[in-house]
Amino acid sequence: MTDKVVVLTGGVGGAKLVLGLAQIMRPERITAIVNTGDDFDHFGLRISPDIDTLLYTLAGKANSALGWGREGESWSFMESLRSLGGEDWFLLGDGDLALHILRTARLKEGIALSAITREFAAAWGVGVTMLPMSDDPVSTHLMTDEGDLPFQRYFVERRCAPVVRSVRFQGAAEARAAPGLVAAILDADTRAILIAPSNPYLSIDPILALPEIRSALVAAKAPIVAVSPIVGGQAVKGPTAKMMEELGVAITPGSVAAHYADIIDAILLDERDPASDLAIAHASADTLMVTLADRARVARAALELADRL
Amino acid sequence: MTDKVVVLTGGVGGAKLVLGLAQIMRPERITAIVNTGDDFDHFGLRISPDIDTLLYTLAGKANSALGWGREGESWSFMESLRSLGGEDWFLLGDGDLALHILRTARLKEGIALSAITREFAAAWGVGVTMLPMSDDPVSTHLMTDEGDLPFQRYFVERRCAPVVRSVRFQGAAEARAAPGLVAAILDADTRAILIAPSNPYLSIDPILALPEIRSALVAAKAPIVAVSPIVGGQAVKGPTAKMMEELGVAITPGSVAAHYADIIDAILLDERDPASDLAIAHASADTLMVTLADRARVARAALELADRL
Repeated sequence: MTDKVVVLTGGVGGAKLVLGLAQIMRPERITAIVNTGDDFDHFGLRISPDIDTLLYTLAGKANSALGWGREGESWSFMESLRSLGGEDWFLLGDGDLALHILRTARLKEGIALSAITREFAAAWGVGVTMLPMSDDPVSTHLMTDEGDLPFQRYFVERRCAPVVRSVRFQGAAEARAAPGLVAAILDADTRAILIAPSNPYLSIDPILALPEIRSALVAAKAPIVAVSPIVGGQAVKGPTAKMMEELGVAITPGSVAAHYADIIDAILLDERDPASDLAIAHASADTLMVTLADRARVARAALELADRL
Repeated sequence: MTDKVVVLTGGVGGAKLVLGLAQIMRPERITAIVNTGDDFDHFGLRISPDIDTLLYTLAGKANSALGWGREGESWSFMESLRSLGGEDWFLLGDGDLALHILRTARLKEGIALSAITREFAAAWGVGVTMLPMSDDPVSTHLMTDEGDLPFQRYFVERRCAPVVRSVRFQGAAEARAAPGLVAAILDADTRAILIAPSNPYLSIDPILALPEIRSALVAAKAPIVAVSPIVGGQAVKGPTAKMMEELGVAITPGSVAAHYADIIDAILLDERDPASDLAIAHASADTLMVTLADRARVARAALELADRL
């Protein structure tokens, strides 16, 4: 029975699609392959922003007002840190610290990131299989008009202000895919492989930069469908549209499809965007995900497109 | 002008005396030599309980209700940690984490504990010079009827229940005194050296176990006065009295004076306790420190006793 789904995802936008999928099918049949190119060390703590966003979202703990972090978060740590003169450009919530501190301690014990992520997901009753793209460190760097910036410095500290020339994924060429990841992509029971509407350059490209993952996707029998991160000529959140402009491509689903050309079989685009420059199979829908029902609708539309291929 | 004071101190009880001293003299003339035998690593974070208690107390941030930790502390981290299945026998408050995380990060940068402590004290406007006894790791272990227990396992996890046979200070024989510590003890301007009413076996003995510190105290010109941790035949807080019983000594100021025999010149005892078994100079006072005025009174009594010698 081909009823498994694999999703390649970054943080916030991708988590919405995965949550939508979990509304319309058994979460246990979903494997989320999560970007770890944004992972970094801060105060000696290992922080995995996209994994954590997925954990919070799927465990029902996400802060919907902020769009990141935990619901009902408190900030005593940051206040105390500031009073001691500590660097405060990256916000660490009090509850959020538990993930970072426990992850760092487990990594030091020699436990792999994928095993730790499985423990966290189990503790919080998350049914979706969450796989970090790799247990090996990969780090996204942006070549900008201000020089080489590690992801978090660009994204958080400089608030995506620098003009991006190119992006590189340090360590990706040597990184192995996490255990079970290639098998999930190649699994004969896999109905569809989705690329979430995350930032193609910063959230999906790091995953595709792993040779094992790219080869598996090219070899996969299951249809591969991208959900366009563009909605009405804009990005819903984050620097996707700004980066497309800086990289000299039109802010259209056609540019997204071209970017994924050697990987995808089809693209689900927003009904507000032009399909005119699309050379591959596609479908249109309202892809703006505000409510839980929106998330389920977009997930359903992506699966229906995959089923048609 | 001999107007400097040096205090050997552990956590809560000792911090009360140091705060009392800071009420009756310029804090800048006080050097607190702080026990670090209780320091330990937890989740990869370096925790210095006695230093932190002194910081909180002298910065006016101490939680007077709990008797440890920060005023107005919140506990989101612990709640989140428990939900992830993390070990929760040692309580880490949200604001408190800033000290541990920043200290650990600075230690990893190669900064000495004494320098980090100076930074923290300066950030919080603490005028007292706080010196950890050593920048080298020393760790207190208790030989008990349940075997060898590191300090925090005995003190926090087992709540001092095991019967103590002896105490050892791993690393003390090789540890160097922190920079400036021996000079402060030998300083010709030092009016008095006080031993705070901390647990002699667990808070003061680790300090005295450093050969450089013991030699300096023996050579010191300034009078050395211990403040008895016994009040009315009991310990105000912690396992001092229980340990004295287990070690087979009477719970009296005389036993404390005998314990410090080769170091001290006099002892300040509580007016409720017998002076009959005392062979050295002494004075009696109400040494119970509940209010800020109590703390100042005990500090004054200890200095007056020193001045009489």
